[in-house]
Amino acid sequence: MALLVCKFGGTSLATPERVQAVAKKLVAYHRQGERVVAVVSAMGKTTDDLLALAKSVNPHPPARELDRLLATGEQASMAVLAMAIEALGVHSTSLSGRQAGIMTTTVFSRAQISEVRADRINEELDCGRIVVVAGFQGITPKGDITTLGRGGSDTTAVALAAGLQADLCEIYSDVAGVYTADPRIVQRASKLANISYEDMLELAAAGSGVLQMRSVELARNFGVTIYCRSAFSADVGTYVREGKAMEESIVTGIVSDLSKAKVTLRGVPDRVGLAAELFGTIADGGVLVDMIVQNISEFGLTDISFTVPKSELSRLEPILDKLVQILGVRGFIVAEDVAKISVVGAGMQSSPGIAAQMFKVLANCGVNLDMIATSSIRISVVVGAAGVEQAMRELHTAYGLDSDSDFADTHLTAAELEAKMTKGR
Amino acid sequence: MALLVCKFGGTSLATPERVQAVAKKLVAYHRQGERVVAVVSAMGKTTDDLLALAKSVNPHPPARELDRLLATGEQASMAVLAMAIEALGVHSTSLSGRQAGIMTTTVFSRAQISEVRADRINEELDCGRIVVVAGFQGITPKGDITTLGRGGSDTTAVALAAGLQADLCEIYSDVAGVYTADPRIVQRASKLANISYEDMLELAAAGSGVLQMRSVELARNFGVTIYCRSAFSADVGTYVREGKAMEESIVTGIVSDLSKAKVTLRGVPDRVGLAAELFGTIADGGVLVDMIVQNISEFGLTDISFTVPKSELSRLEPILDKLVQILGVRGFIVAEDVAKISVVGAGMQSSPGIAAQMFKVLANCGVNLDMIATSSIRISVVVGAAGVEQAMRELHTAYGLDSDSDFADTHLTAAELEAKMTKGR
Repeated sequence: MALLVCKFGGTSLATPERVQAVAKKLVAYHRQGERVVAVVSAMGKTTDDLLALAKSVNPHPPARELDRLLATGEQASMAVLAMAIEALGVHSTSLSGRQAGIMTTTVFSRAQISEVRADRINEELDCGRIVVVAGFQGITPKGDITTLGRGGSDTTAVALAAGLQADLCEIYSDVAGVYTADPRIVQRASKLANISYEDMLELAAAGSGVLQMRSVELARNFGVTIYCRSAFSADVGTYVREGKAMEESIVTGIVSDLSKAKVTLRGVPDRVGLAAELFGTIADGGVLVDMIVQNISEFGLTDISFTVPKSELSRLEPILDKLVQILGVRGFIVAEDVAKISVVGAGMQSSPGIAAQMFKVLANCGVNLDMIATSSIRISVVVGAAGVEQAMRELHTAYGLDSDSDFADTHLTAAELEAKMTKGR
Repeated sequence: MALLVCKFGGTSLATPERVQAVAKKLVAYHRQGERVVAVVSAMGKTTDDLLALAKSVNPHPPARELDRLLATGEQASMAVLAMAIEALGVHSTSLSGRQAGIMTTTVFSRAQISEVRADRINEELDCGRIVVVAGFQGITPKGDITTLGRGGSDTTAVALAAGLQADLCEIYSDVAGVYTADPRIVQRASKLANISYEDMLELAAAGSGVLQMRSVELARNFGVTIYCRSAFSADVGTYVREGKAMEESIVTGIVSDLSKAKVTLRGVPDRVGLAAELFGTIADGGVLVDMIVQNISEFGLTDISFTVPKSELSRLEPILDKLVQILGVRGFIVAEDVAKISVVGAGMQSSPGIAAQMFKVLANCGVNLDMIATSSIRISVVVGAAGVEQAMRELHTAYGLDSDSDFADTHLTAAELEAKMTKGR
């Protein structure tokens, strides 16, 4: 008898019919004799709607109240799913983050899970019930509700899988697994059967949206096996786990990310501690910096470039205006029409020439390199946004990742996939 | 420094603008130096929408999950109101039923409040914050969320007022107070400045929708003064409290109720214990019986009539079919085209002839009496529905309740009232 944690995203629960389809899946597991814990996000666009409601009464809603409001989304969807399970003749209990024993830090809107107290869940499972837990939320020592930040339901699922020592943590979404590249751009992308935690972390860091980085880190730290799969088909997905099968492939995947802007500080005095002061101030302003590149200095001045989410530029620019004055920097330039391309693979550590090959392909596509940064298993470059799709396809071919056939299915919207699935029943 | 509990219904919170208007009211009290606790219902039609969602996945949703789902409505509106208050520069904390210490029995969907543990509320008030509490919900000893049944937010407000020893419990709604009759029917109805608990209880029992009977009972038991007033105007409302000022008037109000059906059991064997068996079985079926009338028996057989909500007829009829067979009753007749008219007033106890006067007015209007039932301070009759409005107006005049002027305002919808209020600012 295995213990399964199954997480369902908002798209998978957007309508009563989809909730009923999820209930069927869970009941099927239960009838096979498994112990089943489901983790749910809010239905459809509920979280966005609640956020808009909050802003309509207060442009800067206090974090505690905002968390309290957003948490109702998952609390509603958990109850609705439990009802749908009961309608199929299997007993089910829904539990809020509090009732499920998800203890967090007192940092509203991006709390960290500190502990899982799983007594109540185990008690309900022992009674033969399917347990449905609200994702994305927990509770502070004082008893206030917190949320875990965007994508937090993945983190809830992995934390519960760790706390319950589950055999598997299934993440159901409208993405059918982890691909060698985004199939909407690279038609011959192939779905990976397995990926290591390290490669998955680098893909997530590079901008792949399949899994939240925090949840992958948590899975690695506690040895939780994740299975990413489609909520709308029975196709095989991708296992994320200790990476032995991966050693033979050098490049695991290629990711492009158009959500970042490039910022360059010109004429920065080259003195000890300046970078620390610069990025410390930016971090204090709550802006998340991604890649950082600094060139060698000339005449005691240097240039520093970094990337940030485009959505944070409006917050960043006033901070930079001040820093330029304080630090005696010549000025800064913002470029929004850029893309980040990353090549990821644990095999790169022992395989020279991967970077050279990447630069050569990009040059052949006429793409100029603005920034380069590497880790031991990832190479990321920032380039002009034009020509990126073509470059992605060329890189995919060059690294021998092309599958034999186009993955046409992956171009379907969630609704089309569902229609297809319904037809196939 | 007074402590005020202010309850707002769903209509008063239906839009962001209305939420902001409520926030302004509360902040004004706060700035006067009062300690303020607000109790909120779910915004607008949220509860109905959630109920429909539940039914769409399960026609008979389990009560625990339904309560959990419905409770999210008040939890969302409390957070939104707290945000709106903060936007006005006053600190506010929202508390769920659990956090506010509303302990209940473990009877899902119609739980009773067993205790109020007000430590957290007092703590927040001591910090100078406006506390917003989710109405309609509480928590079982095991930690599961319960709801208190329709109109339960009134009960929450009164229970909190009792637990906190508040100076006043204000109930804001789209009804501007308690009237001598429904002003939509009787144009010359007048708003009462005061009404005793007893008279208010009888009006509520007779079908007046201003306050829930349970909340009035609770207020009477704990000596809580209730002030019913409009959420959309600053007009004076009605105080519900120990009734000394009321003694001079004989009739306090007249209520008509078209929501009931009359059921008559024909040829019931007149034996000891039969009524107990009959109404015991109906109660076990969850049907709420209102008036019961039995005539003297003839030849060992009698007729029993009673009224039930029309909405419960579909549940009642199969129960009656069985009872007719088991008890040897000849059959039953259901009449839906009926109305109940009640005349209420504590002064009736020492004032003979009130009933005779009522019957005379009804006879003059050509209205025939089907059933009569009286308590010490109420006379209720069931009549055919035709001509009831005319009869209401005649009774209002006969008991000397007519005001000097028509209350045209009371015909406005909530939106019209609000528009008027906005104009008047």
